[in-house]
Amino acid sequence: SRTINTDASRVDKAGYKHFMAKEIAEQPTVLADALRAYLDGNTIVFPGTLPDFTKVDRLTMVACGTAFYACLTAKYWFEQLAQLPVEVDIASEFRYREPPITPRTVALFVSQSGETADTLAALRYCKGRADSIVSAVNVAESSIARESDVALPIHAGVEVGVASTKAFTCQLNTLLLMALHAAVARGVMTQDQLAEKLAHLRGLPGLFNIALERDAAMADAAHKIAEARDVLFLGRGLMYPLALEGALKLKEISYIHAEAYASGELKHGPIALIDKNVPVIVMAPRDALFEKTVSNMQEVMARGGKVCLVTDAKGAAEAGEDVWRTIILPTVDPVLSPLLYALPAQLIAYHAAIAKGTDVDQPRNLAKSVTVE
Amino acid sequence: SRTINTDASRVDKAGYKHFMAKEIAEQPTVLADALRAYLDGNTIVFPGTLPDFTKVDRLTMVACGTAFYACLTAKYWFEQLAQLPVEVDIASEFRYREPPITPRTVALFVSQSGETADTLAALRYCKGRADSIVSAVNVAESSIARESDVALPIHAGVEVGVASTKAFTCQLNTLLLMALHAAVARGVMTQDQLAEKLAHLRGLPGLFNIALERDAAMADAAHKIAEARDVLFLGRGLMYPLALEGALKLKEISYIHAEAYASGELKHGPIALIDKNVPVIVMAPRDALFEKTVSNMQEVMARGGKVCLVTDAKGAAEAGEDVWRTIILPTVDPVLSPLLYALPAQLIAYHAAIAKGTDVDQPRNLAKSVTVE
Repeated sequence: SRTINTDASRVDKAGYKHFMAKEIAEQPTVLADALRAYLDGNTIVFPGTLPDFTKVDRLTMVACGTAFYACLTAKYWFEQLAQLPVEVDIASEFRYREPPITPRTVALFVSQSGETADTLAALRYCKGRADSIVSAVNVAESSIARESDVALPIHAGVEVGVASTKAFTCQLNTLLLMALHAAVARGVMTQDQLAEKLAHLRGLPGLFNIALERDAAMADAAHKIAEARDVLFLGRGLMYPLALEGALKLKEISYIHAEAYASGELKHGPIALIDKNVPVIVMAPRDALFEKTVSNMQEVMARGGKVCLVTDAKGAAEAGEDVWRTIILPTVDPVLSPLLYALPAQLIAYHAAIAKGTDVDQPRNLAKSVTVE
Repeated sequence: SRTINTDASRVDKAGYKHFMAKEIAEQPTVLADALRAYLDGNTIVFPGTLPDFTKVDRLTMVACGTAFYACLTAKYWFEQLAQLPVEVDIASEFRYREPPITPRTVALFVSQSGETADTLAALRYCKGRADSIVSAVNVAESSIARESDVALPIHAGVEVGVASTKAFTCQLNTLLLMALHAAVARGVMTQDQLAEKLAHLRGLPGLFNIALERDAAMADAAHKIAEARDVLFLGRGLMYPLALEGALKLKEISYIHAEAYASGELKHGPIALIDKNVPVIVMAPRDALFEKTVSNMQEVMARGGKVCLVTDAKGAAEAGEDVWRTIILPTVDPVLSPLLYALPAQLIAYHAAIAKGTDVDQPRNLAKSVTVE
């Protein structure tokens, strides 16, 4: 076990009550900077040579905790935008399972600290087996960065709160840029389509600022949610990994037992839990899957469950009147929705923890970086 | 929506209080019969021609609920025994994600009823894209069976209890036979090694009978667990999918909020939940990963958490004295452990539900087959 210097002494709360609140609030600035660091006009520039995505047929992504959910999100991006099949695994499972890795596989590792023990061991397993080793890290001089063929900095800056917030959205930002690069390289996306996605990404900090102004609605919902002992998060498609991240955040800092499910799995078991004491937080922008989600919400409400819907104005209008709480975010390009919808996931957890009086920045039993197994 | 004839009228409880109890207890007989149906001496015989596993480079498995956890288990088998990379997905996610499927992919669908709507839609998406469509079903004349190139019956017999028990272990049995076949076909396993694994499989019903005699220890643990509102299940490797299945069973019939984690993920968030009110059920035979699991258990106990360890005699001896409850199963070949360890997962859920007085065979909000989205 070794100690990671988080430079916490050089960071202050800048007037916020907690580092977590500061790190949530600075995301518009941090994301804008993180994007700028990778762009030269409409060209994505990486620090180092990425693998040739026309010559590989698979991407294997490995991580732990929040970074694992960032990888789950990126799976949808690489598969849909770049038509590249992706496998995602938990590092502690991957390393001991010793799975077959074909030489046409890119292995990608995500870790905020770059020192996560299981992720590093998984990386070493892939060396000499995979086509190449890529990582996305926040600490540039970390072990995982050093042992990669290419290490992509996520540019989140120092994160002090144990519950990851801006590092998560910056991981998403970096992974999305890589997926867009792969999409163009593989001829699945044109330069014009890329320019359009980059324009949306440039607009994201503005949408974050608008969403931050909805803080009161999120705090109100969170204060009621804090009365519950158990909470479910539901999402489909890109919102499924985000539901997992939302549940993890709530669990980590408020000690509420929150669990996430893919909405379509609700009827295969977890719906048995639903009653008036188990609020259900549904992450669902008005996209192609929204209608399915409304039907899942109705099943929950028909069984006395209280639904807190996180959606956009169109979704709120179509959701019906029986929804218990609605949090309305600005409309966003569907591909970018996980970035924007991370904000209410973070703020609900934050306000619930405040309501419960837990130690937001130093939750019990948890360490910032898991450098032992 | 259509009605599935489960032939329930032609089945009775044979002296048991619940169909679920009967279906758990008959597993030694049912598994012996299900194995026999696939064996001619030491040759595995399939009803129909399986894909040529030397000509494919990937297996994609898709299912919902309990069948999804059977697939997650089979991923470990196909990767370790047959060195065939496997991807597993939830049907409701897979069908809408529309992932890239390469022509050298075998697509495998698992469904007890053979009518699960999302799984059927996923199957149809793979037609014409994958090398071939294989299914493992309990109802031979079902839609999923009809639309597959090869449909493998799991031979569980009629299952009436809404919470799947013998269908799960029979799914595992069929999937393991397929993995063994693929291992031999791909030259990774010799005939002698196959014969040895089949000998272990033939011995499994005997081990099930011994394990069934430990019912009192499981009931005792379950009665204490039933006092909890929240429970965690932990497992590594082949025990991780089983932990997921154990949590689903408990959730489905006792309405306790049980959630499973890969043991290595504990420190990345869920450990924040641990206190004396959240029992932790650890599935861990004394295998190569046991030492890691003991270290996870110690972290739980150091934080006041009560550990119920399900293990074998050797594991019990090494686990230390601070374990709250120990359930000791007979020693089993590590590859077969998910089949045997399914039994305590089922019986803990069953006895907890009895203690809580819930309707074991017809839990609230749930249907046996989910034939609508």
